[in-house]
Amino acid sequence: MRTLKLTVAYDGTNYCGFQRQANGLSVQEVLEDALAPFERDAAGRGPTVSGAGRTDAGVHALGQVASVNVAFETPASAVQRALNARLPADVRVVGAVDATPGFHARHHARGKSYRYRVSTPPVQSPFDRLYAWHAPGRYDLDAMRAAAEALVGRHDFKSFQARGSAVRHTVRTMRTIAITTPPGEIVFEVEGDGFLRHMVRAVVGTLLDVGTGLRQPADMAAILEARDRAAAGPTAPAHGLTLVAVTY
Amino acid sequence: MRTLKLTVAYDGTNYCGFQRQANGLSVQEVLEDALAPFERDAAGRGPTVSGAGRTDAGVHALGQVASVNVAFETPASAVQRALNARLPADVRVVGAVDATPGFHARHHARGKSYRYRVSTPPVQSPFDRLYAWHAPGRYDLDAMRAAAEALVGRHDFKSFQARGSAVRHTVRTMRTIAITTPPGEIVFEVEGDGFLRHMVRAVVGTLLDVGTGLRQPADMAAILEARDRAAAGPTAPAHGLTLVAVTY
Repeated sequence: MRTLKLTVAYDGTNYCGFQRQANGLSVQEVLEDALAPFERDAAGRGPTVSGAGRTDAGVHALGQVASVNVAFETPASAVQRALNARLPADVRVVGAVDATPGFHARHHARGKSYRYRVSTPPVQSPFDRLYAWHAPGRYDLDAMRAAAEALVGRHDFKSFQARGSAVRHTVRTMRTIAITTPPGEIVFEVEGDGFLRHMVRAVVGTLLDVGTGLRQPADMAAILEARDRAAAGPTAPAHGLTLVAVTY
Repeated sequence: MRTLKLTVAYDGTNYCGFQRQANGLSVQEVLEDALAPFERDAAGRGPTVSGAGRTDAGVHALGQVASVNVAFETPASAVQRALNARLPADVRVVGAVDATPGFHARHHARGKSYRYRVSTPPVQSPFDRLYAWHAPGRYDLDAMRAAAEALVGRHDFKSFQARGSAVRHTVRTMRTIAITTPPGEIVFEVEGDGFLRHMVRAVVGTLLDVGTGLRQPADMAAILEARDRAAAGPTAPAHGLTLVAVTY
């Protein structure tokens, strides 16, 4: 058996997320369709691709990782070229290599990094509308950084997990939360061993609450302790989020 | 009479250009529709907006300028807010001021600047697909800059004008052509007193021909002298082009 590791960038605007769904076009589906000419099962479907993370509808990726077990022997670089020739322009295979056979993009992931962009001027550039949340206003960056610091480390992040999620083990390690301010923006770059559903977006929504003074940095410990989604702030919209990289 | 000067940014992907057309949605049309609640003619249409330049279908703008004569007295800042509340998110009024009555965005323009982005890596980022021409390869920047230098100044640019254009006076002054190379890109920034239809795109197509060695910098003088579109290189696609600013 041969296992390919694909690194995939996509504009998530027109997708229901990475993972195949009954309703809506997924990145997984267009990847599998593009692989099908190399290798098809009895139903005519290409080999099944596993992504490191699902990503919600509208979330983007610069470095999503996908693994796929295949029998064909085409060199990885030629596979990359063929996939990009077949894929829509909003999904690109930016890297393709032979991995250790059995490599699994999700099971073997050791960390992920995400970026979340917020536009703060009264008028948002039309070029940012699909890639940054427009939340105009002035924010207390020092307070936001102090609040973010309280989230770094190993914690139970249940208060930041989407309601109704089936995941029971909600302890994760947040390695870093960096907050930078390029002109007209607040950018959050977070890195950790794994993230619960909507976790980055709920962290961003809660930190913006701190930035406006609605919450205090000192509230963060109690929010974590509550283990209740209602204790944290709102979920920032999906389109500001980008999966930047997955580490193994 | 009162004249408003609007500065408009738009993602041109979904528009047939700035100017109203029988087929296709124009930026002019969405602006006039957004102005209509302030003031309507007998047909129910808002006041007529004049743009500094037409821009082709798919061309973007950061600083298109539009003028409009109105009778209503709402302050310009409130007009800006109301327009942005009514406009689609891919068109934004980034500035609105009272101009000298009779100001006309096109007739009074003294100069325009455009940017053209080319992506050069083998795989284009999905986030650039609507904003940069994917022309992968290696280019001789020194040759391109030498060729660009030959176009600076007052010349007859007829060889760079779209075929079938009705414009007879084809002499223009190209003030600057700057070529820069951010990672993975070649960016052309051109400034002049005015541009013929497709002129920036034909200049970029011709300079890329120089970059690949298909043409030489020394050819530029003969291309200008020919006054024949067939003498210059191909027209680069519309989506790489952005109208950056109009000066008065």
